[in-house]
Amino acid sequence: MSTTSEHVATQDLLQPLQPPKRYLFGPGPTMVDPRVYRALSKPIVGHLDPYFIQVMQDVQELLKPVYGIQNGSTLVISGTGSAGMEAAVANFVEPGSKFAVFANGYFSDRLSEMAKRNGANIGRFEKAWGETFSDAEAADFIRREKPSVVGYVHAETSTGALQPGHAICAAAHDAGALVIGDCVTSLGGLPVEFDKTGIDIAYSCTQKGLSCPPGLSPLALSQRAMDWLRARTTLSRSWYLDLKLIHDYSTVSHRYHHTAPISMFHALREALMVIAEEGIEKRFERHRRAHRFFVKEIESMSLSMHVPEAHRIPTLNTVSVPKGVDDAKVRKRLLEGPGIEIAGGFGPLAGKVFRIGLMGPLATEENVRFFLQEFSKALKAEGYQS
Amino acid sequence: MSTTSEHVATQDLLQPLQPPKRYLFGPGPTMVDPRVYRALSKPIVGHLDPYFIQVMQDVQELLKPVYGIQNGSTLVISGTGSAGMEAAVANFVEPGSKFAVFANGYFSDRLSEMAKRNGANIGRFEKAWGETFSDAEAADFIRREKPSVVGYVHAETSTGALQPGHAICAAAHDAGALVIGDCVTSLGGLPVEFDKTGIDIAYSCTQKGLSCPPGLSPLALSQRAMDWLRARTTLSRSWYLDLKLIHDYSTVSHRYHHTAPISMFHALREALMVIAEEGIEKRFERHRRAHRFFVKEIESMSLSMHVPEAHRIPTLNTVSVPKGVDDAKVRKRLLEGPGIEIAGGFGPLAGKVFRIGLMGPLATEENVRFFLQEFSKALKAEGYQS
Repeated sequence: MSTTSEHVATQDLLQPLQPPKRYLFGPGPTMVDPRVYRALSKPIVGHLDPYFIQVMQDVQELLKPVYGIQNGSTLVISGTGSAGMEAAVANFVEPGSKFAVFANGYFSDRLSEMAKRNGANIGRFEKAWGETFSDAEAADFIRREKPSVVGYVHAETSTGALQPGHAICAAAHDAGALVIGDCVTSLGGLPVEFDKTGIDIAYSCTQKGLSCPPGLSPLALSQRAMDWLRARTTLSRSWYLDLKLIHDYSTVSHRYHHTAPISMFHALREALMVIAEEGIEKRFERHRRAHRFFVKEIESMSLSMHVPEAHRIPTLNTVSVPKGVDDAKVRKRLLEGPGIEIAGGFGPLAGKVFRIGLMGPLATEENVRFFLQEFSKALKAEGYQS
Repeated sequence: MSTTSEHVATQDLLQPLQPPKRYLFGPGPTMVDPRVYRALSKPIVGHLDPYFIQVMQDVQELLKPVYGIQNGSTLVISGTGSAGMEAAVANFVEPGSKFAVFANGYFSDRLSEMAKRNGANIGRFEKAWGETFSDAEAADFIRREKPSVVGYVHAETSTGALQPGHAICAAAHDAGALVIGDCVTSLGGLPVEFDKTGIDIAYSCTQKGLSCPPGLSPLALSQRAMDWLRARTTLSRSWYLDLKLIHDYSTVSHRYHHTAPISMFHALREALMVIAEEGIEKRFERHRRAHRFFVKEIESMSLSMHVPEAHRIPTLNTVSVPKGVDDAKVRKRLLEGPGIEIAGGFGPLAGKVFRIGLMGPLATEENVRFFLQEFSKALKAEGYQS
């Protein structure tokens, strides 16, 4: 039998798909291993096929060491990291409940916004973009707010600041609250330590630390979160992201809920295999080494980091834009010249920082050198004198 | 520079990804052109890269002739067809508003369920699975219900019945209501005629009539729907599916909303190119021819179709399971032998129908012959004597 369609006419309006070669040094998406692209292009099977059910289960297992979860469940949402965030909120933040959020960047604001749309009362602890919360501040805020659910962002993509979760989780559990931890930029590139930290609901994406194209959102759920969810009597406002139904489809009865993005699961499985083969601890150490080397070189160029040393995300560096330099022009030069993508700041950090990712295949001294050579040239061309 | 990760240890728990070869004759996912798989494996660029913005715009343009829309907008949701359904409901069905639904199958029940979760009052016109609504019945129901939004399923995947939308849309507009039309199983395989029918909000998937892997949901919105949306003062319960934000990202300012599934957009663009090259009218006629041939052959095997001739979906055939035959055993035999996937019925049609898709590359006489030869063998092996 033939499964190739006939092409009876040429379409002259559109050019064939030919994406330009990019070096993705931004906050994500980042570079993808060729093995993962090969997995993406494997022929699909049905979403209820025994082979695909096995692929979903493999992905769930492979995610566990990356999240650092042994007690609880992993599952994958058929949407991007933002869908994972909405799944966390829509399933665990009930209308009328109190949601306390540590607000120090764009993504914690997004968490607030989603909680508002789910009918929650929001308590916000606000700090400037790039700052973090001390253990004592965190405990104090939670004691004061008496929330049902607490939200924080582990690695804040908009600022480059890393927020430890231990004190937040301990205080929240003392108050009888569940904790949602945004791990979009941390998962796969640095330790999340889900169990050890005490997170109840974590979500992430595929296109940052996991080195896979965007399109899925891996979640981790503590036993406490699962028990709470099973006992919830009101319906989540989202059917598409209803974790009771998705958990049943993906891990229990395998009863149809929606048609999962088969090819993206193929890619994610392969990306997780690449990580497993490298070894998760070795991978984290490789990212830390690349980060230290990057910072040393940046400082030797008389540039400075936006976030204090103790609170930096190793995989996402925010470098302050030097005085007199137009960051947009530097970024344009990098993209149009060597094809390097980095990001600028936005919101309160617009024009003030470059956001430079060193994730997955890019987290090597060799690739940092390649980047800095081009970055330095672009800065000089835009008038920077180190 | 090198972008390939080192593989320092072998992962011995898991086998390499090697999906079995399947002939996807079910209701979807269906067969994908090799060109589309090649597009999937192209290296990605960033989600704000000028190249990707162009890809999104190409996809929007290529969708227009497939939907039959000239006045209004097309855009693509970063989730599966069910996410498209939830986007339609969460954006256009406000809490407290009246939602009237034509309920004759599983997917209209899902529409009801989503509307309930969005706080609507639901009016249901129920019929048995496989039946359809006459023009007079449709108009009468809408006059009686006085809804703000009307929902119907164009091609009901659970039953094989096709519901024309002209009378529904005319009556809804007379009543000042918007119309949501589920085109998940129709788009790309048969005419949707969005403008001509008068639909306001249509959604679909990629893995059926568009012959692409699952993972995205293409939407069409009338000018009336866009105007209504712009005037809406309450917030949609979903941030991820907020069409004001998504429309702005994908067609107006290109301001960041979420990281779109780049590779899936590459695939969808290529799938739409394949359709444009064949010619949409030729494609529809090819599907009709394959369907007529299929029905003729099925009847010559003394089997019968579940849906009356006038109301059949040409791309999704529901064949009644003959007395004494266990449909699950037939399906298992097809999957494990020649690797053919078809689906069974569920809900009130469990055990009563086979659901056989003839979509995209499979909609040819040659492929119908191949399928029926294997189907006939499997039926005989399970005791059927024609």
